[in-house]
Amino acid sequence: MRPVCVIGLGLIGGSVLRAAVAAGRPAWGATGSARDAETAGGDGFDVAESVDAALCRAAERDALVVVAVPLPAVDEVLRQVAELAPTCLLTDVVSVKGPVADSVSRYAPETRFAGGHPMAGRSVSGWTMGSAELFRDAAWVVVADEDTGLDAWRAAADLAIDCGARVVPTTSAEHDAAVARISHLPHVLAAVLAACGADGGPLALALAAGSFGDGTRVAGTRPELVLAMCEGNRDALLPAVDDALGRLGAARGALASTGALRATVVAGHRGRTLFDEHRVAERTQATVDLGGRDALEELRLIGTQGGHVVGFAGDYALAEVPVSEAGIGSATNL
Amino acid sequence: MRPVCVIGLGLIGGSVLRAAVAAGRPAWGATGSARDAETAGGDGFDVAESVDAALCRAAERDALVVVAVPLPAVDEVLRQVAELAPTCLLTDVVSVKGPVADSVSRYAPETRFAGGHPMAGRSVSGWTMGSAELFRDAAWVVVADEDTGLDAWRAAADLAIDCGARVVPTTSAEHDAAVARISHLPHVLAAVLAACGADGGPLALALAAGSFGDGTRVAGTRPELVLAMCEGNRDALLPAVDDALGRLGAARGALASTGALRATVVAGHRGRTLFDEHRVAERTQATVDLGGRDALEELRLIGTQGGHVVGFAGDYALAEVPVSEAGIGSATNL
Repeated sequence: MRPVCVIGLGLIGGSVLRAAVAAGRPAWGATGSARDAETAGGDGFDVAESVDAALCRAAERDALVVVAVPLPAVDEVLRQVAELAPTCLLTDVVSVKGPVADSVSRYAPETRFAGGHPMAGRSVSGWTMGSAELFRDAAWVVVADEDTGLDAWRAAADLAIDCGARVVPTTSAEHDAAVARISHLPHVLAAVLAACGADGGPLALALAAGSFGDGTRVAGTRPELVLAMCEGNRDALLPAVDDALGRLGAARGALASTGALRATVVAGHRGRTLFDEHRVAERTQATVDLGGRDALEELRLIGTQGGHVVGFAGDYALAEVPVSEAGIGSATNL
Repeated sequence: MRPVCVIGLGLIGGSVLRAAVAAGRPAWGATGSARDAETAGGDGFDVAESVDAALCRAAERDALVVVAVPLPAVDEVLRQVAELAPTCLLTDVVSVKGPVADSVSRYAPETRFAGGHPMAGRSVSGWTMGSAELFRDAAWVVVADEDTGLDAWRAAADLAIDCGARVVPTTSAEHDAAVARISHLPHVLAAVLAACGADGGPLALALAAGSFGDGTRVAGTRPELVLAMCEGNRDALLPAVDDALGRLGAARGALASTGALRATVVAGHRGRTLFDEHRVAERTQATVDLGGRDALEELRLIGTQGGHVVGFAGDYALAEVPVSEAGIGSATNL
C-alpha cells in the first residue's frame, strides 16, 4: 500500500493521518504547530521533526503527499514540495480547488497532482478534535480536470476510499461553484439572519426558537474559519450571492406589490425536497475503465449526475449513480 | 377555574384543549373540520355540535374563548362571537397579532380581548398531532396593548401558564416585528437557500451536508402553512426582508470590491452568540402589581427586556428578567 505523508495535522490532516494508519498504510505527518506535533506524537503517531524531513521521506518512498494546511499557507508548503519532492504524487484537502490548482501550477508544476476536498468540516479545529472515522460515508471530491493525470487521481481516490469516504469526481471549477452554493452561501445567509434577529433586541431573541435556531446554527462557527472558506472561494461565491440577492429581491417585490410569496416558498420547498430525495434516491451501478481514453470524462459525468465512486476492482472504478435526477435543477424554472 | 372554549381543533387548538383539561379546567371545543371533531370526540374530549353551540355555552358560563383557526377564518368566527358571546373574555393563538386585533375591533368590539401567540409551531398539523405538552416551557406572547383590559390579559395569561408556557407580554406591533425577524424571515431565507442549492444541480446536492441541511430545514414545511404565516405578517415582514437585503447587498459589495466578508461574518457570529447567551442568561426576579395604574406598561417592559411571567400570586405577576442584556441589539453597530 502506498505510503502517505500528511503536511498539517489539524482537524482534517490529523484525521487523514489517523484514517490512513487505521487502513494499514505506512503514514507519517508534519506540522508547524508545536502543540499539534507534540499531541500527535504522544498519541503514538509518526510525526517528522519538520515539514522538510517529512517531504524528504516522501520523495524516498514515493509517498502520496497530502497538503492539509489552510489556504493562506498552501503556497509556502508547495515551495517546499517543489524543492524536496518535486515529482511526488500530490493531493490536498483545502475547501477550494481552483486557487489550489493555480498555486500548484505556479509553485510545484512537476508534481503529479489531483486536488481533493473531503466534505466533513466541523466547527471545531486542531489535532485533538480529529478522528479516524471523520470521513466515514462522507463525500470526498477528487478533482478530475482536463490536465489531471489518472495516476494522481487514482492515488488520491484510493486514500479517500481507505478513509471510508465516497469519491465524487468533478472539475475544480464545478467543485468551487457547487460548494459556493451548498457550503459558503449557507454561512453568509446564516450570518445575515443572525444579525437581523439580534437587531430585534431581547424580545426577538426571547421568542426565537426552531426556525431561527436552525437557520443561524453555522453562524456560531469561529469567524476566522468562515472567512478563510468564503473569501478563498470569492470568484465562485459572488454569482451564488447574486442568485440569492435576486431571489430575495424578487420575494421582496412580490411581498410589497401583491403580498404573495408563493413563487419563493414553492421553489424553496421544491429545492429542499430534491435535497431530501437525493439522500434516498435509488442508485444504479456504473463502472469506468481507468485505462480507457475517455476515463476522466466518464468520471466527471458520474459527479455531474450526483453519483460517486465507492471502490476499485483492478483498473475499474465502481460507481453508484442516482437512477433519475431528471427533476434536479428544474427548481430554476419555478 | 375559569372554563375554556376552544374554537378550532387543529394542532394548536387541539393542544390547548388537551392542556386545559390536563390542568383541571372545564373545557370544550368546536371545529368546522368533521374529521378533527370526530377524532377529538373519540379521544374523550367535549366537542360541541357546532361553533354556535360552543359559543352559547361560553356565554352562559363566562368562559375564556380561544380562537384557534387560521387567519383567513378569523373574521367569520369573530362574527359568530359577536352574535352569541358578545362580551366574553377572548384570546387567540394566531401567529400575527396586529391583523387579529384589527379584526376584533371591527367585528367583536365589545369582547374583553387580549391576543395571544404560543411559540410552539411545528411543521405538522391537525388534531392527531397535538399534545397537552406542546407548550411546556415555550414562550407564549399575551398582548398588552394600550387598550388591552387587565382582566382579559390575566385570563389569557392564566391559560398560558396552565398550559406550561412562559408568558411574554408585549404589544401587537412589537410582536409582529419580532416574529418577522425570528420566524418569518428564517422561512424566506431558507426558501432562497434551498432554491439556490437546487440550482447547482445533482453535484451540489450530492456535496450538500450540515450547513445546507440546517439552513434549509424549514423549507420542508408545507408551503400553505408558510404562506399563511408570512403573508399574514406582510407589513412587519417587509422591513425585516429589507434589512436582510441590505446586509446581503453589503456582503456582496464587500466581496466584489475588497473580497472581505469580515463585517458580515462577525455581526452574524455576534448575533448567534447573543441568541445562545440569552438561553442561559442569569435571571432576576421581578413582580408586577396588576392592580397598579402602570401595570400594562410594567408588563410590556418585561417583554422588551427579554423576560417573561412565570406565574401569579394574588394580584401580582411573578416574572424573570435577564440580568444584563446590554449587549443585545448592538450587533447593528458592527
